[in-house]
Amino acid sequence: MRIEILCTGDELLTGLTTDTNSPYFMGKLFELGEMVARSQTVGDVREHIIEALASLRSQCDALLVSGGLGPTADDLTAECAATAAGVRLVENTEVLAELKARFARRNFAFTPNNAKQALIPEGAEVVRNPVGTAPMFIQRIGRCTLFFVPGVPREYRALVDGEVLPRIAKLIEANPDRVFRAARLLKTIGLAESHLDAKVAPLAKIHPRVTFGFRTHAPENHLKLLAQGATQREADEALAAAERDCREALKPHIFGADRDSFASVLGALLRERGATVAVAESCTGGSVCELLSAPAGASSYFIGGAVVYGNAMKEKWAGVRPDTLRAHGAVSKEVSIELAEGVRRACEATYGLSITGIAGPSGGTPDKPVGTVHFALATSAGTQWQQQRMIGDRERIRLFAAAHALDMLRRHLLGVGV
Amino acid sequence: MRIEILCTGDELLTGLTTDTNSPYFMGKLFELGEMVARSQTVGDVREHIIEALASLRSQCDALLVSGGLGPTADDLTAECAATAAGVRLVENTEVLAELKARFARRNFAFTPNNAKQALIPEGAEVVRNPVGTAPMFIQRIGRCTLFFVPGVPREYRALVDGEVLPRIAKLIEANPDRVFRAARLLKTIGLAESHLDAKVAPLAKIHPRVTFGFRTHAPENHLKLLAQGATQREADEALAAAERDCREALKPHIFGADRDSFASVLGALLRERGATVAVAESCTGGSVCELLSAPAGASSYFIGGAVVYGNAMKEKWAGVRPDTLRAHGAVSKEVSIELAEGVRRACEATYGLSITGIAGPSGGTPDKPVGTVHFALATSAGTQWQQQRMIGDRERIRLFAAAHALDMLRRHLLGVGV
Repeated sequence: MRIEILCTGDELLTGLTTDTNSPYFMGKLFELGEMVARSQTVGDVREHIIEALASLRSQCDALLVSGGLGPTADDLTAECAATAAGVRLVENTEVLAELKARFARRNFAFTPNNAKQALIPEGAEVVRNPVGTAPMFIQRIGRCTLFFVPGVPREYRALVDGEVLPRIAKLIEANPDRVFRAARLLKTIGLAESHLDAKVAPLAKIHPRVTFGFRTHAPENHLKLLAQGATQREADEALAAAERDCREALKPHIFGADRDSFASVLGALLRERGATVAVAESCTGGSVCELLSAPAGASSYFIGGAVVYGNAMKEKWAGVRPDTLRAHGAVSKEVSIELAEGVRRACEATYGLSITGIAGPSGGTPDKPVGTVHFALATSAGTQWQQQRMIGDRERIRLFAAAHALDMLRRHLLGVGV
Repeated sequence: MRIEILCTGDELLTGLTTDTNSPYFMGKLFELGEMVARSQTVGDVREHIIEALASLRSQCDALLVSGGLGPTADDLTAECAATAAGVRLVENTEVLAELKARFARRNFAFTPNNAKQALIPEGAEVVRNPVGTAPMFIQRIGRCTLFFVPGVPREYRALVDGEVLPRIAKLIEANPDRVFRAARLLKTIGLAESHLDAKVAPLAKIHPRVTFGFRTHAPENHLKLLAQGATQREADEALAAAERDCREALKPHIFGADRDSFASVLGALLRERGATVAVAESCTGGSVCELLSAPAGASSYFIGGAVVYGNAMKEKWAGVRPDTLRAHGAVSKEVSIELAEGVRRACEATYGLSITGIAGPSGGTPDKPVGTVHFALATSAGTQWQQQRMIGDRERIRLFAAAHALDMLRRHLLGVGV
């Protein structure tokens, strides 16, 4: 079975935009036991799109085409799909009606270019886009099924998950040479990629049926395990054995698996314990609050956060004493502790979490260089404090400092030591 | 001039590894005024690599091939390059001597598979790799120059910068049909992609030398102008004329260009005016503070923010009256105004900015459905208020609400009306 990808879009050929869609589809397909044979990207150039479509449809069993389904002048895919197939482009009345209704619901003016999205190659099957205006369509030409989806990542993912993969899964099931695969993504925090690799490399040798892959997703590092077998059971068992060994080697750095997000895992831990949290953060500028409040239902555990950039606000909102600030400076163990305890009191929360540090690029001193960050976690049983020297530019320091603070809380909740 | 990319490697087709090499080369090439016509990736499969090389070398003027130059069994590129060109693979004595010397310097054992890296297609020019063992080689077949480089990012970048781009620059200069290009990326906020297109489409017609491209980078929409000319001056002038018209049509939606970020533009506006800002945010959970504090030097204008998730914190940190909360509810015009005025007072800031809304997925009512967000901006001359109904899921509502709040401030600073 031969499956290929064709992405369209000038922006993907200028280095301005990185294609994150294709790795998404590839990963999902891999979990189904198939690999993409080739992936290619062409610009918004009529001849290039038509040429690619015409040659691919005779080589592939399935082709995923993305991008160029929008309402603008450089959206050429539907037109090229019709030309390559030698059919007309026809206005689909259902799609047009739905587009108009959608615009009306939002009180948006329906301009003539919006109607372009209702033009579909004759004979193609139209599939509704649940999260956007561009409909998906499917052409069947000879042995090849061509799936046309929008390039906007949110829409691409919804349609790949909901429509493309189930159809491809059926094609795979019908394939007599099928290989069975099973995959697990283990997500770690607080561990550099090279350390993760060093801990896991010996395990890869004793699990020859499992491929070990690493992916940095700062501030996290992910370990992907992919097992193969002649039956599904064989693949599942090989995966389970490798996963067991990896968890043993890496815990408590592993915070979750597959679709877990760090914030949702932490939120679930807080909810399970009926605990609440309040934050006082300085150099991270709101990132800790933003992460804590990202999951749906965050209001059950997140009470509030004080982004205390100026020193006056550290006193006013988090009860830091002027004497402490004068004696030790804003970036100090003492201030981090008073911030955590003060915000815990102000919010009447189970936990008070604080960060104060120097994100740079300026503001560092020989004593307190850029990257110096103090963390404190106030609890009913006392306050824990840590100091770290974060490496990197301003953005990276903020990112890793926010993750470290939240991981202090996670480890405390799990009782594995901060 | 037609330039293409061919990447090889199974790992790029499984979703386990993202190709960051190609965007790097594309970006550098774009700065030279050329765009890649097509980029494709194939796995470590002999027939696929040979097929791609054979067809590409008759279509391209320059082809960058990466990956598969290592010592292992699945490194097939040199062998395939020889087959596709109909030449033998020959051991290059200089490369072999250098490999052996390199291994000796590091006290590594030189195994037979390492000698594989000295096998080069007959007639190819060999280029030393300054940062690794795999040498680069160059084939010239007909009008096409094929550059073969390793896929390891550090080696790829060193060879692309040091060897490939200077040679391509010469090809570009020598090309009698050379096209000169000039590009500008205009960044807009507060305008849907289809509305951006509708405003700009008439301009595209009167600037035929300029290609108009659109890119959604939520919550922003970007407009890319790419001008062509027979001379650099012609391209520059065509670009300047189109840019002038677009700025006229879109201002004040355009907040910046090229590498500008929204936060840095807003920060510069505040700094120029010696103004400071304080934030009280609820449903956005810290995103507004995070954005405001992202640029280096943010402490000169950002004083602090209260992430007032719980109602008690709205009273305590931002001075909202309990009566107001009781009478109108947390998501109301009245509370948003008291939040903005209260946090402005608490922080003694020039501006107080507030957001209160329902990010969902739960918490909506018929009166106040999910997506209802109130915004207020308190100034020395009074307080402005707005209500919006944001569309989408929790993540999108938070993202667009934060952007809208900051854009209220930007517009006020520019005096263009909120």
